[in-house]
Amino acid sequence: MNRPIRLGMVGGGEGAMIGNVHRIAARLDGRFDLIAGALSSDETRAAESARALGITRSYGDFRQMARDEAARPDGIEAVSVCTPNHLHEPVSRAFLEQGIHVICDKPMTATLDQAQALADLAGRSDALFILTHNYSAYPQIRQARAMIARGDLGTLRLVQVEYAQDWLTQDTDSKQAAWRGDPERAGAGGAIGDIGTHAFQLARFVTGELPDRLAADLTSFVPGRRLDDNAHILLRYASGAKGMLWASQVAPGTENGLRLRVYGDKGGLEWQHDTPETLRYTPFGKPAQILRRAGPGSTQDGSRVPPGHPEGYLEGFANLYAEAAQAIRSGTMPDTLPGVRDGLEGLQFIDACIRSNAADAAWVQVTP
Amino acid sequence: MNRPIRLGMVGGGEGAMIGNVHRIAARLDGRFDLIAGALSSDETRAAESARALGITRSYGDFRQMARDEAARPDGIEAVSVCTPNHLHEPVSRAFLEQGIHVICDKPMTATLDQAQALADLAGRSDALFILTHNYSAYPQIRQARAMIARGDLGTLRLVQVEYAQDWLTQDTDSKQAAWRGDPERAGAGGAIGDIGTHAFQLARFVTGELPDRLAADLTSFVPGRRLDDNAHILLRYASGAKGMLWASQVAPGTENGLRLRVYGDKGGLEWQHDTPETLRYTPFGKPAQILRRAGPGSTQDGSRVPPGHPEGYLEGFANLYAEAAQAIRSGTMPDTLPGVRDGLEGLQFIDACIRSNAADAAWVQVTP
Amino acid sequence: MNRPIRLGMVGGGEGAMIGNVHRIAARLDGRFDLIAGALSSDETRAAESARALGITRSYGDFRQMARDEAARPDGIEAVSVCTPNHLHEPVSRAFLEQGIHVICDKPMTATLDQAQALADLAGRSDALFILTHNYSAYPQIRQARAMIARGDLGTLRLVQVEYAQDWLTQDTDSKQAAWRGDPERAGAGGAIGDIGTHAFQLARFVTGELPDRLAADLTSFVPGRRLDDNAHILLRYASGAKGMLWASQVAPGTENGLRLRVYGDKGGLEWQHDTPETLRYTPFGKPAQILRRAGPGSTQDGSRVPPGHPEGYLEGFANLYAEAAQAIRSGTMPDTLPGVRDGLEGLQFIDACIRSNAADAAWVQVTP
Amino acid sequence: MNRPIRLGMVGGGEGAMIGNVHRIAARLDGRFDLIAGALSSDETRAAESARALGITRSYGDFRQMARDEAARPDGIEAVSVCTPNHLHEPVSRAFLEQGIHVICDKPMTATLDQAQALADLAGRSDALFILTHNYSAYPQIRQARAMIARGDLGTLRLVQVEYAQDWLTQDTDSKQAAWRGDPERAGAGGAIGDIGTHAFQLARFVTGELPDRLAADLTSFVPGRRLDDNAHILLRYASGAKGMLWASQVAPGTENGLRLRVYGDKGGLEWQHDTPETLRYTPFGKPAQILRRAGPGSTQDGSRVPPGHPEGYLEGFANLYAEAAQAIRSGTMPDTLPGVRDGLEGLQFIDACIRSNAADAAWVQVTP
Repeated sequence: MNRPIRLGMVGGGEGAMIGNVHRIAARLDGRFDLIAGALSSDETRAAESARALGITRSYGDFRQMARDEAARPDGIEAVSVCTPNHLHEPVSRAFLEQGIHVICDKPMTATLDQAQALADLAGRSDALFILTHNYSAYPQIRQARAMIARGDLGTLRLVQVEYAQDWLTQDTDSKQAAWRGDPERAGAGGAIGDIGTHAFQLARFVTGELPDRLAADLTSFVPGRRLDDNAHILLRYASGAKGMLWASQVAPGTENGLRLRVYGDKGGLEWQHDTPETLRYTPFGKPAQILRRAGPGSTQDGSRVPPGHPEGYLEGFANLYAEAAQAIRSGTMPDTLPGVRDGLEGLQFIDACIRSNAADAAWVQVTP
Repeated sequence: MNRPIRLGMVGGGEGAMIGNVHRIAARLDGRFDLIAGALSSDETRAAESARALGITRSYGDFRQMARDEAARPDGIEAVSVCTPNHLHEPVSRAFLEQGIHVICDKPMTATLDQAQALADLAGRSDALFILTHNYSAYPQIRQARAMIARGDLGTLRLVQVEYAQDWLTQDTDSKQAAWRGDPERAGAGGAIGDIGTHAFQLARFVTGELPDRLAADLTSFVPGRRLDDNAHILLRYASGAKGMLWASQVAPGTENGLRLRVYGDKGGLEWQHDTPETLRYTPFGKPAQILRRAGPGSTQDGSRVPPGHPEGYLEGFANLYAEAAQAIRSGTMPDTLPGVRDGLEGLQFIDACIRSNAADAAWVQVTP
Repeated sequence: MNRPIRLGMVGGGEGAMIGNVHRIAARLDGRFDLIAGALSSDETRAAESARALGITRSYGDFRQMARDEAARPDGIEAVSVCTPNHLHEPVSRAFLEQGIHVICDKPMTATLDQAQALADLAGRSDALFILTHNYSAYPQIRQARAMIARGDLGTLRLVQVEYAQDWLTQDTDSKQAAWRGDPERAGAGGAIGDIGTHAFQLARFVTGELPDRLAADLTSFVPGRRLDDNAHILLRYASGAKGMLWASQVAPGTENGLRLRVYGDKGGLEWQHDTPETLRYTPFGKPAQILRRAGPGSTQDGSRVPPGHPEGYLEGFANLYAEAAQAIRSGTMPDTLPGVRDGLEGLQFIDACIRSNAADAAWVQVTP
Repeated sequence: MNRPIRLGMVGGGEGAMIGNVHRIAARLDGRFDLIAGALSSDETRAAESARALGITRSYGDFRQMARDEAARPDGIEAVSVCTPNHLHEPVSRAFLEQGIHVICDKPMTATLDQAQALADLAGRSDALFILTHNYSAYPQIRQARAMIARGDLGTLRLVQVEYAQDWLTQDTDSKQAAWRGDPERAGAGGAIGDIGTHAFQLARFVTGELPDRLAADLTSFVPGRRLDDNAHILLRYASGAKGMLWASQVAPGTENGLRLRVYGDKGGLEWQHDTPETLRYTPFGKPAQILRRAGPGSTQDGSRVPPGHPEGYLEGFANLYAEAAQAIRSGTMPDTLPGVRDGLEGLQFIDACIRSNAADAAWVQVTP
């Protein structure tokens, strides 16, 4: 095994859901050692979290962390950015400017301007920028992408993608909800930013196509909520394909219901996140086939255990980290690994939704 | 048992899918005797079909059938209308004017004008007009309607309804496809008329709410097709609820994929047609419950056999016929039985879709 | 259409579950007219039931019915036997001796002696004897049988069959339960007779193989119950294949859970009754295929509506009646239609279970 | 966080499936550091594997490893035993005798004598012995156990447990298959040892009851195979409950199909491994409830991410390691953590199966 990559983390202190996910994902295949962190902007709490997590070097300020680590011979080679959205850009910038690779949670930034700026910076940097659109790293999603690329579905016509949750059905004082509902920290998107970008990226990743126009009807159902908690979106592709995207955080009984269905003139593919190891392939006029992770007819990549031994969310997330490790070691981004392009497209998507919604769900260009 | 109702049929000769469905539905509970028919506009073929089906009196002309049957002491009391859409209005009119009850397939008519005219006529007639929106007669759909009416979901927020088929994915020369693709016979709606109206009515039936605005993006994917084969529709309700409706006949691997999901601020309900006996009820913050036809916590109405003995499409259709028999015998329409209001709303829906689509999916009033 | 067959019924008065099922099944395809009945041994109640069901000729005594109907020019051609088990033999005998075809519910008789006697009689009779093992008439069961017969699974090794219900979990005073729990009327088998015979016949029908030995562990879990309510059975086939059969009426949460799985050295097949239109086919080393009723790769026989329009229990039962009608008209039994051989095997199965259980679940010959 | 536990590994070199599983499970929650190993009996290959895995200290001999590590101040505190079965006992003995905690794969040993000896040794040792019956560590399995313990199902009557795989359907030259098919290395059990013990332990863990008698019909379907590849087993409990256990490695289309169903006089529970986060709870006479990992009504223990973010096999395995870490740090075994009792019962199960099968599937005592 290659020596593990020395990793730092910004944000993601104790109690944060996604910070722990990044840590497990980094650790699962043994390719990273988490050794430094600025886990909180409060220096004392940062230090407590670091100690609890067994992280050696703790910082109260991410800029200082970037400078100091870059200066050390044993400094971190990569950093995981697990802060609320509005800090993604400054944090990523600080590390990229020091030549430290960045693995950043989504959406890439809080604003489209930030996204453009970060994309520009990353384009000039030798350090890699990786965006954790983790759902695109499930083996059966990779399988779907490959099947569509090789023409198994024929000409694409329809994309149906949805991402439904229920945790914001009623008012909640959870820490997770607090910053996600605050435009200062989350950006202009509520559900569209938090989960809509995942759905958008997943469809884009699997089909290889980016819609050129959309019409979005956004709603904040819960009184007092400042950002959308539900989005109904129509999509149009330059190819003539069309789609629908539903993102909701107020659908009681759904959990983390990401679902993608793609249909062409020769067949269809269906995948849903609660059974991520199963891909339903329906060649037109033939029996449906059930393609299983690591099973007959499916990619053997991205699997740690044989079919029937369920791998899930953390393994999918770890696949991104494993691919990131490989990219970092080799110095090149594979085209399956989400990066600044995906991040920029995500912010363009959010921006287009806001513009369309402001115009009563009129059609707008996704990439103006 | 009450004496069976003497029934006639117009259209639905041998080879017609839906004619046979009506016959089985009428026969299944033994409440109708099919004794007369104008099964084809070609008198010879009508007679052949009648003979093959064991129907005593055959007519080549539906107007004559209406007059003659009305004049007989043993004439039919009700007629099933199983023709292509453009004949629904004239056929229904002919029989209603003779005081003969009409059980008509959907959509109610080919045009909105016809629908309005027929609604007016039916309003003045002593004879009943029943529209076979059969999906609304599944016991678990009735159960869902009752639960929403009594507030189990709280205030409704979201309606997700879809109806996906694949039989028109490629060009086909089936008889079914021929008239459905012909605006002269089908009316202005393709998929929206044939199956979209079912989806629209189902959501309306279950929620009790009619959207007041919609935005529709219609497509004809198959070259040469003159009517839509796919529709992406956004819905807005006066109550503030919102919805999405997808109707497609070009989604390979779907069969007859009608699916309804409704969410309120207190819970959700999910139903799909491939498992019509199961209703998934998800009170917010509690475990999901699986409500089964005739099972614990579910209505015992509309069932012929205990849970676990699957009842399906024909039984659901037969429920409408059974309810129709009861309505005919009692002379009153129960509010669960689809009639002219549903028919008129269906044509308003089609019309609104056409208008919206013509305006690039702009919002239009459903009921202008 | 051929003229409908004139049908009589013995047993199955109002309130009887299975009588109504037979009536619907007979009526569904329009091939039978139910015109005479001895629906109860109490002449007054028989007449009331007949009147309520619109049956013209009512008898209080089945022997008189058999004689009188045989003597009429418009007498019944076939009779449905829907009595408790102990009457199956005398009723069937009475009609067969008059040359009237018999469609009898299962198990064929209450005792093995009766079964042997009835088999002998039927062998000598010109009238047909048909046993309503309805589950074997589902299209996807026929499909499974054909696939195994043509070798799709290779050499058969394993049969896993189960039939689990929960309605007898606790003591009940239902009419259905009363006679089923009474050895005088049900025979020696409780669950093994009522549902075990279905499971046994289904496995036998699909595989084409009859186990030659079994070991049965029978239990009556509910205090005071005189017959088994649960059976655990091991099977051995002469071919070397082996199997397990579980029949239970005390498994809370199961409804009518008949399930069959068959495995050979080249592939497997799985079917379960709650989704009777789906057959899962798993060729070894290839993706699983989902074979759907009337869909690609599946038999088109036994279907009334296209795939995706669920057909269920009543349609499956009606398939048997349709096949019975064809057999009666043609005078020959197709080998797919269950008859005396199946009935005799069913009683041999019950008898073998009783013998094995009495010997502490020792192996016994199924056909001594 | 407490300092990670210093861990060693015996067996499980590169290419071994289960060794990698143990490593990931140990690493996933960050509670272990794997620093020493005797990954192969060939010293050179052991060293290569160790280097590839980033393990510092490599040994060619497990006894020397035990002695040397025990002598070091920074020596391992625990060891994972991932060898073929016949080495479980000598390896475990070597480390236990040095006071090093043992985390051993199942079955505990190759023979019942070894199991008894190891149980005796472990009983006298201060070091802990933990057996990786990983399936018992799924949160919804723990949930099921708790529900049964508190009486949600009432008096237990029925246990249906099965474990079906297909990877040995045909002859294979895989390394995994080689030692599993060799009585010298696997012990007397084939499928019953490899997966039957898992099924047996799972049922025992969840119900809290050990069957006192069983009857086993074992088969080796593949020509030349020396151990069973299929087992049909009947169970009887002292309480009066009864059960069936099916273990197979020759059922094409199954993957890793462990399934448990338990029924009492008040309700039922169903769980299957391909959806390990779902527990179906069916209180008699009420709607079925779907209990989801970390969801409403379910234990919040053993979860790393919210419901709807699938956790699977590796997380379940990691739960055992996490619990092992806690036990090692606290010095006490919780009663949920499988240990020598489970190991001994597993070997008693295998032995009883062999004895019963030799007597033509006669009943034998599980614990003689």
